[in-house]
Amino acid sequence: MSHAFPIRAAKLPRFSIFLPLALAFMTTTLPHLSADEGMWLFNNPPRKLLKENYHFDPSDEWLSHLQHSAVRFNDGGSGSFISADGLVLTNHHVGSSALQKLSSADHNYLNTGFHARSRAEEIRAVDSELNVLQNIEDVTARVDAAVTPGMSPADAHKARQAAINTIQKESHDATGLRSDVVTLYHGAVYHLYRYKRYTDVRLVFAPEQSIAFFGGDPDNFEYPRYDLDFCLFRVYENGQPAKIKDYLHWSTAGISDNELIFVAGHPGHTDRMDTVAHLEFIRDDQLPQSLDRLFRKEVLLQAFSQRSRENARRAEHELFGVQNSRKARGGQLAGLQDPAIMDRKKSDEKALREAAASDPKLKDDLEAWDAVAHSLHVSKEFETELDMLEHGWAFDSRFFNIARTLVRLPVEDAKPNADRLPEFGESSRPSLEQQLFSTAPIYDDFETLKLSDSLSMLIEKMGADNELVVKILAGKSPRDRAAELIQGTKLRLVDDRKRLAKGGVKAIEASTDPMIQLALLVDPASRAVRKRDEAEVQEPMRQAYAKIAAVRFALYGTNTYPDATFTLRLAFGQVKGYTEAGKMIPAWTTIDGAFERSAEHHDQEPFRLPASWLDHKDRLDLATPMNVVSTADIIGGNSGSPVINRKGELVGLIFDGNLQSLVLDFIYTNTQARAVSVDARATLESLRKVYDAGPIADEIERGAAATE
Amino acid sequence: MSHAFPIRAAKLPRFSIFLPLALAFMTTTLPHLSADEGMWLFNNPPRKLLKENYHFDPSDEWLSHLQHSAVRFNDGGSGSFISADGLVLTNHHVGSSALQKLSSADHNYLNTGFHARSRAEEIRAVDSELNVLQNIEDVTARVDAAVTPGMSPADAHKARQAAINTIQKESHDATGLRSDVVTLYHGAVYHLYRYKRYTDVRLVFAPEQSIAFFGGDPDNFEYPRYDLDFCLFRVYENGQPAKIKDYLHWSTAGISDNELIFVAGHPGHTDRMDTVAHLEFIRDDQLPQSLDRLFRKEVLLQAFSQRSRENARRAEHELFGVQNSRKARGGQLAGLQDPAIMDRKKSDEKALREAAASDPKLKDDLEAWDAVAHSLHVSKEFETELDMLEHGWAFDSRFFNIARTLVRLPVEDAKPNADRLPEFGESSRPSLEQQLFSTAPIYDDFETLKLSDSLSMLIEKMGADNELVVKILAGKSPRDRAAELIQGTKLRLVDDRKRLAKGGVKAIEASTDPMIQLALLVDPASRAVRKRDEAEVQEPMRQAYAKIAAVRFALYGTNTYPDATFTLRLAFGQVKGYTEAGKMIPAWTTIDGAFERSAEHHDQEPFRLPASWLDHKDRLDLATPMNVVSTADIIGGNSGSPVINRKGELVGLIFDGNLQSLVLDFIYTNTQARAVSVDARATLESLRKVYDAGPIADEIERGAAATE
Repeated sequence: MSHAFPIRAAKLPRFSIFLPLALAFMTTTLPHLSADEGMWLFNNPPRKLLKENYHFDPSDEWLSHLQHSAVRFNDGGSGSFISADGLVLTNHHVGSSALQKLSSADHNYLNTGFHARSRAEEIRAVDSELNVLQNIEDVTARVDAAVTPGMSPADAHKARQAAINTIQKESHDATGLRSDVVTLYHGAVYHLYRYKRYTDVRLVFAPEQSIAFFGGDPDNFEYPRYDLDFCLFRVYENGQPAKIKDYLHWSTAGISDNELIFVAGHPGHTDRMDTVAHLEFIRDDQLPQSLDRLFRKEVLLQAFSQRSRENARRAEHELFGVQNSRKARGGQLAGLQDPAIMDRKKSDEKALREAAASDPKLKDDLEAWDAVAHSLHVSKEFETELDMLEHGWAFDSRFFNIARTLVRLPVEDAKPNADRLPEFGESSRPSLEQQLFSTAPIYDDFETLKLSDSLSMLIEKMGADNELVVKILAGKSPRDRAAELIQGTKLRLVDDRKRLAKGGVKAIEASTDPMIQLALLVDPASRAVRKRDEAEVQEPMRQAYAKIAAVRFALYGTNTYPDATFTLRLAFGQVKGYTEAGKMIPAWTTIDGAFERSAEHHDQEPFRLPASWLDHKDRLDLATPMNVVSTADIIGGNSGSPVINRKGELVGLIFDGNLQSLVLDFIYTNTQARAVSVDARATLESLRKVYDAGPIADEIERGAAATE
Repeated sequence: MSHAFPIRAAKLPRFSIFLPLALAFMTTTLPHLSADEGMWLFNNPPRKLLKENYHFDPSDEWLSHLQHSAVRFNDGGSGSFISADGLVLTNHHVGSSALQKLSSADHNYLNTGFHARSRAEEIRAVDSELNVLQNIEDVTARVDAAVTPGMSPADAHKARQAAINTIQKESHDATGLRSDVVTLYHGAVYHLYRYKRYTDVRLVFAPEQSIAFFGGDPDNFEYPRYDLDFCLFRVYENGQPAKIKDYLHWSTAGISDNELIFVAGHPGHTDRMDTVAHLEFIRDDQLPQSLDRLFRKEVLLQAFSQRSRENARRAEHELFGVQNSRKARGGQLAGLQDPAIMDRKKSDEKALREAAASDPKLKDDLEAWDAVAHSLHVSKEFETELDMLEHGWAFDSRFFNIARTLVRLPVEDAKPNADRLPEFGESSRPSLEQQLFSTAPIYDDFETLKLSDSLSMLIEKMGADNELVVKILAGKSPRDRAAELIQGTKLRLVDDRKRLAKGGVKAIEASTDPMIQLALLVDPASRAVRKRDEAEVQEPMRQAYAKIAAVRFALYGTNTYPDATFTLRLAFGQVKGYTEAGKMIPAWTTIDGAFERSAEHHDQEPFRLPASWLDHKDRLDLATPMNVVSTADIIGGNSGSPVINRKGELVGLIFDGNLQSLVLDFIYTNTQARAVSVDARATLESLRKVYDAGPIADEIERGAAATE
C-alpha cells in the first residue's frame, strides 16, 4: 500500500545543463550495479544484465507492447491495460482517490466496495487523468543550447525553462499529445515524453477497503501480507469503451519461485545519485521537517476522524496518504541514520572522486560536489518561506489551491508561452483545467480544520510579528481567520471558478472572494521566494549535478539508469523470499493466511475481514496464492504496476515494498528488500468466488469484453 | 480528563531572590481580579472576594478541615479523604497509572474495571505516594538571607539551593514529615510545606475506562460530557486502614444552579505572571517544540498500539497522557495565538510598567522585564542540549531514568546534603527510592520502540557528527543501538538496582550494564548544561521575576494568589452553564445523555458503553445528574479535586476543563471557560445500581466502613 504518493512536495529537484562531453570516454564496467538493480528507461533497457544473468533478450516488439500497455495515473500511480475494451488494472489505493471523490455520506465506496454489473453501471471518476506513453525523443541538445556560457544562474534557469516550454508546446500543437520534457540524470539528459491522455475514466470494480488494505497502517510496508489491493477502471473515448491495441494478457500458469519477472511502472522519486552532503541534508533537514509536518497532520486527521463516522469518511483518503508517507519517510530516515548505509554511500563517492581526480579531463569537475553542498546551505536561508508560501504548507485547503491557480492564470496567460511558469504552459493546460474545474466534493468543516492548523503553523514558522503573517491573519486567531475564509469563499461552485478564469485580471482584482484576496496577498512574496530558489539553489544544483553525472558516465559508462522521475521505467527481478531475524519468509502468502491473521487479531479493525469474505469462505480455494514478493527495483509511484513474465503475461500487481525496501530511495539492495505484489490468481479467485463478478473475470481471462 | 499531567518537563521554572521591600507600600485595589478568579493559598484565602461576592466567610476550622481532607497524588493529581477509614476519592485517570501497573496481559483493570468486595481483595498499588499537607511555614527570610548582594548568578543559585536543602532536611529530621520548600510568586516568597506521606495505597474500586473516559480523546476537553471519571483507593498504615480525622462528608442534597462551590486541589502550573516577552517565548518556542514532540510520540504510540491488543494495553496509559497533553498544549497555543488574549496581556503589562515608571521607588525595577527577555534569549543557545540530555528527551526509556538515578546517587551522596542536586536531598530520599525500586512492569519491546525513536530524535536535533552523539550511538543505527541497550540491561531486576545503589561509585564504575554505561557517558555533558541553565537562565529569571512580583505587590497589594506550583490551593466559583456559538449549554448533563451519545456514534469506540451499563440500564435513574460545570479556577493537576459546598460537603469531583478553559494557563476568564466535574450523585447511583457495590456506597454515605 505504499506507492501511491510518489511526488513529494517539491523540495529540491536538482538538474543541470551541460551535456556530458565525457560520454566519449565510456568504460564498460558498472562496478556498483547489483544483479536486479535498476529503474531502466524504455529507450535504454538493461539488455546486458538480462542477457548475462537471465539469458533473456527482449525484442523491440516485446518492449513496445509493454510500454503501450502501461498506464500512468496522473495523481500518482501506475496501472495497465488488461483488455482490448479499455479495462485498466491498478491498486485499490491508487483508485481510492477517485473512490473517495465519488462517495458521499450516503454511499461510501471505500467501505462497501463497488461493482458495476453492466456497462451502464460504470461511473465516471470526477477528475482522473490517465497517461499512456507513446514515444520518447532525446531533446538534450536543444535544451542545452538555450543556455550559453557566462549566463547568470537566474538567466540560465529562465532560458532553459523557455526552451522546454517551447519544445512542449510545439510537440503538443503538432501531435495533440500531452508532451513533457523530462529531466534525467539530474540535468545531464532531457527527453521529451509524449502521452495519450484519457480523461473519461470509469469505475468498474473495487473490493472493500478492509480487504484491499487488510492490516491497515500497522501492516503497511510489512510482509507477510494478505491484501487484495486492486481495482478496475475502464477508459472511454467518445462515450464508448476505448479500443486498446496493446494490453496485457492474463497468465493462466502463474509464477513460480525464482522466476524472472518484470515491472513496468512509474517510480516517483529516488535519491541514488545524490552526493553525500545532499544525503546528509535530506537526513538532517528535509526528512525531519517533512516528518514533523506529517506527524502533526496525522494527529489532526485522526482526532477529526474519531469524532464521527462521517468525519472519518471525509478524511479517510488524506489520512491514508499521510500515514503512508510518514511510514515511508520514517524508513528513509532510518536508512540514512544507519551507518552501514551511509558508509557505503561515502565509500562509493570517495571512489568516484578519486577516479575523477586522477583523470585530467575530469578533475576540474570535482568542484561540483562543493557546489551542491553550497546550494543546499544557501537553501536554508529561505526554505521555511518557500515551504510555507510557495509550497502552500501554510494554506492547507483545496480552496486556496484553486484560488492561487485562478490568481496566477491571467498573469501567466498574458506572457508568451515560453516565459510562463511551467505548470501554466499550453501543453499542461488541459491537465490544469481538469483539476481546477473538478467537481470533487469539498467539505467546509474539513477545510476549516486544515486551514486553521496550517495558519497556526505559519505563525510558528514565520513569526507572529512577520509583516506578511500579520496581514494574512488580519487581526484574527488562526481558527477565526480560517472559518471566515472558508465561510466566505464561493470557490466551491465550479461555475464561479469558470467565471473567474474567464474574467482575466480584471475579474480577479475586482473579486471580493476572501480566498482570492488571500491568494493575491500572498502571491508577490510567494513568487519572489520561488524565483530566489530557482536562481540560488535549483540552477546551481542542476549545473553541478550535470557535471557529476558526466563524471559518472565517463568513468562507468551510460549503460545505466537515472534516478526516478515519475516516468515509465522497466524493473526486473526474481520471485524470492528472504531471511529476517534468522527466520525464512517465503515468497508467497495464501488466502487462508488472511483468515488466520484476522483471527489472531480478534477480528478487530484493521484486521476485520469484510462480510463478503466471511460469507464466501467456503467457496474459496484457500491455497490460492495471495501476495508475493520479488527483488524488482521499485519505489513509490510503482503502485499499480503490472508484474509480467518473460512472455509478457500479467502475473501480479505491485502494491507495496517491505520495510527493508524503504532504503531503495538511496541505494539498491536485494538482501531483504522486496517488492510486494498481489498475485494475479487471488484477483481472479476473489472476483469469481467472493464477488460473483464472473463477466469481469471472463473479460480479464479473454482479454476482451463479451458483447453486452 | 485533562488534569493528570500537570508537571511538564521542567523547561523554564522562574524564581528570584529579593524580598519585596515594597510590601510596605500596599495599595488596596486589585484591578485585574475577576469575580471567581484565583488559585489561593490556604494561608492567604480569598476572604475579601468571598465576603463581597458571596457573603461567605470561611472559619479557620472550615479551612483547616478542608486542607487536611485534601490529598495529593505525587505522580500528578489530586484527591480527598471521604471516610474515617482511609477511603480516597480521585479520578479514574489519576488512578490509571496505578491501574496500568497492576495490570498484565491476563487481567487489564483499565478495561474491566476493579471492585474489591472485601478488605482482603483491596490490592496494593506498586509505587503510589499520597501526600497530605499538614502545615505551612514562611521561610522567605531564611532563603533570601543565603544570597548576598554581589554574588554571581551561579553562586547565588548554589547558595539558595543549599539553604533550601538545609531547611528541608532540618524539617524532615525534626518532624519525620516530607518537607518541601515551595517557591511562590516566581521567587518572591518561599513557604515550607510539610506533608504526611502515605505509601501503602490500595485499590478499592474503578469503573471500566470506557465509561470513566467515555468519548475518549475526541470528547476530552469538550462539554457536554458523560464521564464517570472516578476511582477509589484506601490508604493503609501498619497493614490496617489508616484512621483519618479529617475527611469530607458526602452531600445528600447535591448542588443547584448558581450555587457557590469550592475546589481544593493541586493545580500544577500556570503562567499568569509571565511577562509578554515570556509568553511570546512560550508561544514561539516552547509550545511548538513541545507539540512537535507530542505529535511524534502520539503517532509512535498509536502505530505500536494498533499492532495488537497487548501492545495497546502496554501503551495505553502513556498514550492517554500524550494525547491529553497534546490537546492541552494545543489549546494553550491557540490562546497565545489569539490577538484578543495577547492584547489583554500587553495592556495589563503596559499599565503595570507605567505605574511603576511613575513611582521613584519602583522605576529601577523596570529593567527586570528586559532581564527576563534576555535570559530567554540566552536559553536558546542550549535549550536543545538541555532537553535532549538533562530532560532526557533523547533517552525515552524507564531503564535510562533508573540508570541515571543510580549513576548520580553515589556522587550526590558523597556531598554534604546542602550541596546536592535537590532531588537527591535527604528529605526527598524516601520518594526517590519509592520510584527507583518500583516493581512496576517494564516491557522490553515497548522500551526499545521508545528508545529507538528518541535516539533518532537525538541525531536529528544534535547532529549525526556531534562527538557525544557518535559515542552514544556507538556506530549503530538508533534501532540497533536501542535493541542492544534494552536487551543488555539487567535493571529490570529490582534486586540489581538495589545492589548497584548499595555498591556506591565502585559498583557503578565496575558495572558492565550497557544502560549504566550510557548514563555514565552522558552525565558530564548533562550536568554541565544543567549548570549552565541554572546560572544563565534560571537564576537571572528568578531575580528578575522577584522584582516584578515586588512591583505588583507594591501597586496592587498582596491580597492575591501566586501562579500554580502543584501545591494545595483553594478555588471557588458557581455552578453555571454558558453560551457557545449562540447556543446555551446547561450546567448539567444526566445519565441518559450517555446512552444517547453512544447511540449517536453507533456504539463505536470510544463511545461504546461497557456491558455493565447496558445490562443495568433499566435499574438506573436516568435523570441523575452526571457531569456539571462551574466557574472555579482550575488547571492540570486539579484532576481528582473534591468540589464542596459551603457546608464543606462533597458534591462533585473535578476531572476536566472545557476547551475554552485551556487559556486559564495564562489568564482567567469565566465567559465560557468552565471546570468540569463528575456530579457526586452519579457516583453513588452507579456504585449501587450498576456495580452492585452497596457496601462501598454505604461507607461513602456514612463516612466510615462497616465492621467487616
